[in-house]
Amino acid sequence: MNAITRELRESPLLWLLAAVPVVFVVEHLAPDRHVALFVLAVLAIVPLAALLSRATESVAAKTGDAVGGLLNATLGNLTELVIALTALRAGMFDLVKASIAGAIMTNALFMLGVALLLGGLRHRVQEYNRATARFQAGLLFLAAVALLIPSLVGGVERAGAEQFTLKLSIALSVLLLFAYVLGLLFSLGTHKNEFASAAHGGGEDERLWPVKVAGVLLLAVTVVVALVSEIFVESVQYAALAFGMTPAFVGFIIVSIVGAAAEMMAAWTAARKNRLDMSVGIALGSSAQIALFVAPVLVLLSLLIAPAPMDLRFWPGAVVAVLVSTLAVAFVTNSGRSAWYVGVLLLTVYAVFAVTLYLMPPATG
Amino acid sequence: MNAITRELRESPLLWLLAAVPVVFVVEHLAPDRHVALFVLAVLAIVPLAALLSRATESVAAKTGDAVGGLLNATLGNLTELVIALTALRAGMFDLVKASIAGAIMTNALFMLGVALLLGGLRHRVQEYNRATARFQAGLLFLAAVALLIPSLVGGVERAGAEQFTLKLSIALSVLLLFAYVLGLLFSLGTHKNEFASAAHGGGEDERLWPVKVAGVLLLAVTVVVALVSEIFVESVQYAALAFGMTPAFVGFIIVSIVGAAAEMMAAWTAARKNRLDMSVGIALGSSAQIALFVAPVLVLLSLLIAPAPMDLRFWPGAVVAVLVSTLAVAFVTNSGRSAWYVGVLLLTVYAVFAVTLYLMPPATG
Amino acid sequence: MNAITRELRESPLLWLLAAVPVVFVVEHLAPDRHVALFVLAVLAIVPLAALLSRATESVAAKTGDAVGGLLNATLGNLTELVIALTALRAGMFDLVKASIAGAIMTNALFMLGVALLLGGLRHRVQEYNRATARFQAGLLFLAAVALLIPSLVGGVERAGAEQFTLKLSIALSVLLLFAYVLGLLFSLGTHKNEFASAAHGGGEDERLWPVKVAGVLLLAVTVVVALVSEIFVESVQYAALAFGMTPAFVGFIIVSIVGAAAEMMAAWTAARKNRLDMSVGIALGSSAQIALFVAPVLVLLSLLIAPAPMDLRFWPGAVVAVLVSTLAVAFVTNSGRSAWYVGVLLLTVYAVFAVTLYLMPPATG
Repeated sequence: MNAITRELRESPLLWLLAAVPVVFVVEHLAPDRHVALFVLAVLAIVPLAALLSRATESVAAKTGDAVGGLLNATLGNLTELVIALTALRAGMFDLVKASIAGAIMTNALFMLGVALLLGGLRHRVQEYNRATARFQAGLLFLAAVALLIPSLVGGVERAGAEQFTLKLSIALSVLLLFAYVLGLLFSLGTHKNEFASAAHGGGEDERLWPVKVAGVLLLAVTVVVALVSEIFVESVQYAALAFGMTPAFVGFIIVSIVGAAAEMMAAWTAARKNRLDMSVGIALGSSAQIALFVAPVLVLLSLLIAPAPMDLRFWPGAVVAVLVSTLAVAFVTNSGRSAWYVGVLLLTVYAVFAVTLYLMPPATG
Repeated sequence: MNAITRELRESPLLWLLAAVPVVFVVEHLAPDRHVALFVLAVLAIVPLAALLSRATESVAAKTGDAVGGLLNATLGNLTELVIALTALRAGMFDLVKASIAGAIMTNALFMLGVALLLGGLRHRVQEYNRATARFQAGLLFLAAVALLIPSLVGGVERAGAEQFTLKLSIALSVLLLFAYVLGLLFSLGTHKNEFASAAHGGGEDERLWPVKVAGVLLLAVTVVVALVSEIFVESVQYAALAFGMTPAFVGFIIVSIVGAAAEMMAAWTAARKNRLDMSVGIALGSSAQIALFVAPVLVLLSLLIAPAPMDLRFWPGAVVAVLVSTLAVAFVTNSGRSAWYVGVLLLTVYAVFAVTLYLMPPATG
Repeated sequence: MNAITRELRESPLLWLLAAVPVVFVVEHLAPDRHVALFVLAVLAIVPLAALLSRATESVAAKTGDAVGGLLNATLGNLTELVIALTALRAGMFDLVKASIAGAIMTNALFMLGVALLLGGLRHRVQEYNRATARFQAGLLFLAAVALLIPSLVGGVERAGAEQFTLKLSIALSVLLLFAYVLGLLFSLGTHKNEFASAAHGGGEDERLWPVKVAGVLLLAVTVVVALVSEIFVESVQYAALAFGMTPAFVGFIIVSIVGAAAEMMAAWTAARKNRLDMSVGIALGSSAQIALFVAPVLVLLSLLIAPAPMDLRFWPGAVVAVLVSTLAVAFVTNSGRSAWYVGVLLLTVYAVFAVTLYLMPPATG
């Protein structure tokens, strides 16, 4: 517990943990104060996500490279996964899909863009390991294709289209998971050396927790995140209305940023320390993980826990967002060098999508 | 004036200036001779554009690097801007949009393609500064995304779609201009050295005009271009009919080539002298400038001077043309090396679009 | 003949030639046994294709570099061409188009993917000549654009759309052939040295046949392939039904793999020998040849031999497949290095398309 109290003193972010009890109290006393609940839930999830990612790293560091890498790779987006699972159980497929596409886009454009901008403002030109970036961009490209196809084909009117799209989504989910597992085997196993500098998430300067503390915390915090997520998901539509935001904007932008807040801090800090390998690894790794692990897992789990099975058919705009993010990342990381304007370019592309979602009138069709 | 007369003797192109008075005389005496007026207007605009770009460079060279670069960057496509403004004031939005998309495509595929072909026929393999090409390709990519979105989203039937597309177009225009200004700050300011060889438009062997002559000429020629543009824009649809060309072909191909004639000469001459940095800089720079400066300025000015506000919603074919041009440029300039066949590839892609536009039956929908 | 019998002893594949007489016998005795005929035709075409490509190489090797390269480049996909011509004469345009798009995709994703995977399992990291890959990827990009346009524009409802699409298809076919011929001039002529290692199809360890034997064999085998193709094309739809496969799956996947079986063997053997230059050259060269030579030739020949002229308008899914294949190839070959996971990525993208085609319900629209 000593480690945790020291942590609290040093990371001001963790003071936000105070929002956790508050959100439960308000939920109990005034379950109709949706906007307040939404704000409190956001404030509570951010530090919980930070704790979660720190606990994962601590467990991972103790269990040896291979298992540790695996843990990091599968639990790295635990917050997003728990939020999406809550929405999935509630049958809010639109929110789930928006948060998947939004997370891919937000991590690839916003998280990476800010990292390159912050890094570039401090360092004239920054270089990083192209192998990592290419590998992750390749995974993203594959995922973009897999998301594109059901959306393209599923729209066609024909007998049994619904049935076909669902079968296809399940098959593609299995394919993506298969490629993801082989990718872990590649990057953590056979070709580990090529990915050296980006492999360890947190770096050497990080204080790790004892593995038992971390393990218990991992379980406990996951439960708390799940409980807060329920409040978050329930209140999100009301809050959108109250703030004059479209549901699409909330799903794509707000949920994604809240879910990835912890990784963002890590990626940005690394960029300012001129450790762009790590920033690129975190940003693109998270994107690829959402696309090749979280999304297919949600499709498969929807068969068990959701009111109805969820397919991989996305709104055309979401497909475009994922495709454009993939192309932008492939284009930008191609040279292995960066300057501040590269960050501006990524952020402007992100802003184009964010502004569009913000202005979009609530769909009637 | 001495400089100008010497110029006249040495650049045969400038003899075309004789067409300027002729076009005004014909317009006065026979305002219905549309085809003749069209041909004369084209013949007049080409040398005027050459004068304009020479005058801009002369003023730019005298005002120091930063201001000079800015001048060059903002006035470099003055001819296109003036023609488009004339069409905008006449409410001919289809022509304006066709000329925007056409100019992006023509500069990126045709101007660059001919430059690489001419250069490659003289020099076995040519190398150039990849940093410039990547920067401009990045700007083009951003612009392509910004043009894609309103076209994609604006087509959806929903309440308030018209209103939404307009608001979106204005917001994206501001974003593009913002990115453009930051891009100038980057390429002329903080990272000027990286762009060294492509920065000065005309090269050392160029005879510059005295700054006063150039300044007066700049103003005077702009006024004349504006007057000729009016005749050009009025006659262009008639001429299209007379020559059996579709309006789309005229907007995309003819207007674009006429507007960029002066830059083309400069880019092609440089390529033959094995100064591919300059050719690539001019061609991609013009493309990016149209996309990130001229297009948003036209949208914003349409609020003031056009009969109705113009949005950024393009014909799907135009979006494809811009996207394909961007991808082609990103692909081709990726290696920083060129041989004649690279030019052939770009020109064939251009020919695919040109042939399509030429054969396309006049749209009824 | 001695050379051929030795060949037979050493290449077990050629024992499949026994299927050739059998297929004709069965066709004569039991013309309704469609499934058996289909299987036999497939078994017969595979070794015939191998003979054909060996004969082409032998003739090519004897006729000197330029003519030889030309022969190789034009006859390298003779099997695909003959099968497609048979389907064309029967007016089965859907099958022809599916086999064109399928061959481009199969060669670029499946043939190359397996080659990179097999090579990567033996050799940790493999390097190859990027110039070749870039050139072929450039050709593919051009072809993808040319296939995209009529599909995009042809869908629009307007007066004379049918007529326009046909004229456009003919014009684009001429353009593609023109670019193809210039490409041969480039890669076999002016810039031959840059393509050195990938140029000779079979390598030095190959035993060539006497040119007369090879010439006679070339003609004879082509005739046999044509006859077997007729049986293949007739039986393919019945077989699809019997095997529970969609016609799309048969056209895209089965026909493409059968037609390219011989090249696949060559590309995969080379990859395992760490001669990735040759593998990449064969796989991408075949793709580009289908796109820039076979497809336009089929369009032009349809004017002469088909019941009606065939246009270049493809099913949207086919356009996406060709575009995605092109992007994947451009992305993957960009670095000039490969490891086993790169092969997995290409194969997974291929699997995404194959699974989609397999599951797709028989279209009613």
